[in-house]
Amino acid sequence: MSNSGPDRLYLDDLHVGQRFRSASQRIGEDEIKAFAAQFDPQPFHLDEAAARETLFKGLAASGWHTAAVTMRLNVETGLPLAGGLVGAGGEISWPAPTRPGDSLHVESEVVELIPSRSKPDRGIAVVMMRTINQRDEVVQILKAKLMVSRRPIGRH
Amino acid sequence: MSNSGPDRLYLDDLHVGQRFRSASQRIGEDEIKAFAAQFDPQPFHLDEAAARETLFKGLAASGWHTAAVTMRLNVETGLPLAGGLVGAGGEISWPAPTRPGDSLHVESEVVELIPSRSKPDRGIAVVMMRTINQRDEVVQILKAKLMVSRRPIGRH
Repeated sequence: MSNSGPDRLYLDDLHVGQRFRSASQRIGEDEIKAFAAQFDPQPFHLDEAAARETLFKGLAASGWHTAAVTMRLNVETGLPLAGGLVGAGGEISWPAPTRPGDSLHVESEVVELIPSRSKPDRGIAVVMMRTINQRDEVVQILKAKLMVSRRPIGRH
Repeated sequence: MSNSGPDRLYLDDLHVGQRFRSASQRIGEDEIKAFAAQFDPQPFHLDEAAARETLFKGLAASGWHTAAVTMRLNVETGLPLAGGLVGAGGEISWPAPTRPGDSLHVESEVVELIPSRSKPDRGIAVVMMRTINQRDEVVQILKAKLMVSRRPIGRH
């Protein structure tokens, strides 16, 4: 929960090609249905029998549920950025659905670093985040633009 | 919840420039904190006092919470597509944060229609979705690629 501390990374500590890997988290059928009931109440996310008749061919998590779990993994174990993880936006896709019982982890790679011209205390890190299940299938690709603090002068 | 019915739209029923507007939904402080505790446990989403010291200058919803509420609004009152709302991916940005007590609605516009070459029963609709608060500020822009069914032969 703390966004400061000696092991937190500033923009100046990042380099293109740097990689991070989060811990894993299992997504249960009850969680898939609870998220869907609250935010994406469609048959293929709520009901196994109904889902079999759809293009998902079985119960699948909402893509936004996969995105939310990806965020939790990155906040807690994935990307130890000073100031926390603040996204300005990005490109997202879901090449495969998350299924009940899947264990997901996130593999991230810094692809671009853009210091701000107008605000010398910050910049943008573009990070490619792949959310991967226990069968090594990529269930989400997120190319995220993160706002990252520069290292304060005098702090090492 | 039903994804069929006479008033549901197939790809063939959509045209570029077509607009849709969802109902509004209020987002309370408790909901913001509950979502954050589960999926985005960072101080600026969890604690008003801590949030004032961050670049958010006060409690703000996780962008993924705004995305999830946007999905619910579109599923229930925004986009009445046959087969439901199935996203392949898209581009997302959060120009302003969602604040406690904000009422959000979604304004969507069809910007491109791409029938599948390999699968004659479906296609992609590219839809620009703007999530807007009660002060007419845009809190999220999502350019979504949705998989949409073609009208079955013989069904009118």
